[in-house]
Amino acid sequence: MDYQFSEALAGMHGTATREIYRVLSRPGIISLAGGSPAHDCLPYRQIEEIAAELFADHDLMTKGYRYGTTEGFPELRELVLGLAASFGINISGMDTGNAIITSGGGQSIDLILKTFVNRGDTVLAENPTYQGFLQTAQSYGAVIAGVDAGEDGLIIQDLEEKILRHKPKLLYVVPTFSNPTGKTYSAANRKAIVELALRYGVMVAEDDPYSRLRISGEAVPPLKVFDTNNTCVVYISSFSKVVSPGIRLGFSIGPAEVIRKMTIAKQGVDLSSSNISQLLIQKYLERGYYYPNIEKSLPIYRERKGSMFEALGKYFPEEFSHTDPDGGIFIWGEFRTPIDTAAMFSEALKRNVVYIEGRSFFADGRGRSSLRLNFSNETPENIDKAVRILGELSKMTIAACEERETPAP
Amino acid sequence: MDYQFSEALAGMHGTATREIYRVLSRPGIISLAGGSPAHDCLPYRQIEEIAAELFADHDLMTKGYRYGTTEGFPELRELVLGLAASFGINISGMDTGNAIITSGGGQSIDLILKTFVNRGDTVLAENPTYQGFLQTAQSYGAVIAGVDAGEDGLIIQDLEEKILRHKPKLLYVVPTFSNPTGKTYSAANRKAIVELALRYGVMVAEDDPYSRLRISGEAVPPLKVFDTNNTCVVYISSFSKVVSPGIRLGFSIGPAEVIRKMTIAKQGVDLSSSNISQLLIQKYLERGYYYPNIEKSLPIYRERKGSMFEALGKYFPEEFSHTDPDGGIFIWGEFRTPIDTAAMFSEALKRNVVYIEGRSFFADGRGRSSLRLNFSNETPENIDKAVRILGELSKMTIAACEERETPAP
Repeated sequence: MDYQFSEALAGMHGTATREIYRVLSRPGIISLAGGSPAHDCLPYRQIEEIAAELFADHDLMTKGYRYGTTEGFPELRELVLGLAASFGINISGMDTGNAIITSGGGQSIDLILKTFVNRGDTVLAENPTYQGFLQTAQSYGAVIAGVDAGEDGLIIQDLEEKILRHKPKLLYVVPTFSNPTGKTYSAANRKAIVELALRYGVMVAEDDPYSRLRISGEAVPPLKVFDTNNTCVVYISSFSKVVSPGIRLGFSIGPAEVIRKMTIAKQGVDLSSSNISQLLIQKYLERGYYYPNIEKSLPIYRERKGSMFEALGKYFPEEFSHTDPDGGIFIWGEFRTPIDTAAMFSEALKRNVVYIEGRSFFADGRGRSSLRLNFSNETPENIDKAVRILGELSKMTIAACEERETPAP
Repeated sequence: MDYQFSEALAGMHGTATREIYRVLSRPGIISLAGGSPAHDCLPYRQIEEIAAELFADHDLMTKGYRYGTTEGFPELRELVLGLAASFGINISGMDTGNAIITSGGGQSIDLILKTFVNRGDTVLAENPTYQGFLQTAQSYGAVIAGVDAGEDGLIIQDLEEKILRHKPKLLYVVPTFSNPTGKTYSAANRKAIVELALRYGVMVAEDDPYSRLRISGEAVPPLKVFDTNNTCVVYISSFSKVVSPGIRLGFSIGPAEVIRKMTIAKQGVDLSSSNISQLLIQKYLERGYYYPNIEKSLPIYRERKGSMFEALGKYFPEEFSHTDPDGGIFIWGEFRTPIDTAAMFSEALKRNVVYIEGRSFFADGRGRSSLRLNFSNETPENIDKAVRILGELSKMTIAACEERETPAP
């Protein structure tokens, strides 16, 4: 039978990250590719303790085993509002109607796209941005226009130009320890973004899975803080990087009218997120494990980022420049020599090292000589080894490029 | 700000079921509306026992807490293939590439629609059918054409006519203890459906959440059985009705090419289903709890269905006819007098009884004088009481209708 698949899938071939996942089980592989938190920091002991009580409490598990409301348990929505407040977001005018629990932060992205985007609508995103957003936006038939960024955040003039030109429905940003660059927008830049969004009526999806993982520098408030009337920003966060990805829970906070529409969209997708996951996270937050566990993990992130930073300086060619993030899990780099990091990837794989090539993060095919390196999930020794291998490989690749470009005598 | 929501949401207002969920917490309400399994049969003790071991096994929980593959753990996919085999499906040519774990059976429906349907494509479904399917199909901009059904299943001539007229991408059926009618297609009818699907190249989504809940009559093989080369049927089932809805797990089994596309579609939606839920269900199946628990629950379903059947005979007017299912959780009825079951609903609610009005299950506005009654989730006493209240109310409603129709003297 000749299957006639939908247009939604026509451009989707599996993200690089998910495909690389398949080779990770190969023994000896060092992965700088994924987006996992430090596995050493997963809260085995605390969740074991919580589960022992939870599953024995048959009254509470009545809620766990039955159908739940699509938007999530009210108790958990209260708790995530409290969490948002602790991030600096003003929740004084909000109630549980302003929050929705989703099956990971990824589902928040899917729902906000489903809520706003028709085939052919334009959405804006930083150039480069999270490849999962690009893929999901493409599945909705969105035209994606990239907004350029500098050291401070989005180039406001470019953003305004793109808004005027494209009349976008949505702007997607990862303003703190961005995926893939690790960079953080300044407070002034966030304020300017919200002002433009309000002026032109553009919804902003602020994706913030990483901001708690700050290892240096001064905290910057979420972009949502500048949306003082809770009008144009949906704030998205996740428990994947700070508790556990396998539990698959995230949340969105925003205008009640938008959250209501996202809830209706979620009904048709999975009815509700796992009640078991919701109760585990609810108890995790109630017992106050959230911040202490993050605190305990920061030295590990600091050490690993330091190892990667040092190794890049030691082993990489001088044609390579890279970011120096104050947190998160990624470093982003670019070769000034136009080598193809996608072609280099298969050579790296032969040497048991993986990363993500830069083009995955651009909607317009740029990023050919860039790459994203994850530092959260390998030991300092492995990071040093992998960066050394990549450094030697990139020097060889550059030398080969130059040879080819030198005319024969 | 004037929010410009997508066309996908334009027709979605929350399904009746999900909205009714909100009133269920009202004290004294008797619900014949939902689609929950018998709450008395939820496996509190077994899952408590499984959880006690699972969360203490930090090696295994390494898989639980980290990111997992989008299609689900291979061990669990093996187990659901075994389950499908026990349902009579020939899995001899299949491997784990033919199965995907989804976040409830509902997500399987969403993914198969995403995989095949473009805006404006036609999908076929029985008239009436599961309202969640109608809503999700509408969110993809599908045109839904209803196929008429008789005692035996779909009217094959009508199905062929609709296939020829609409060139549909997909046929959606709940052939065993259908939602909402409770009826079961005969084996011959299933065979004929598959033959037409193969002849005209139409994908069939066979949704089978209820077949294990058989309380009388002879088992009929899944429709998938007649798709001998594993070509045109995606078989969907769920753990919601036979283990727990709150765990949110289901699965699809079908051609590898289709399952692969559904996997890519799932990447952009929620990356993977909860690993915690997957491990709980994996152990539940490994320990052989699946069938014994169902066996133990059947007398409860049998008793409740019997109570409803008896009460309908006792209290309902003779203008009402209804189905007599051999299992599942629903009875479907229709008034020959053209009373409006949607209008009657608000009166029933005042009397603390809820059901679902018939129009929710038709794509074309029919079903005005029909209703769906769930018998799985109230005690025999409550069922008797609720049916008595509805019976009296419908007699009153009919009398009022006839009065209005009698010309003034």
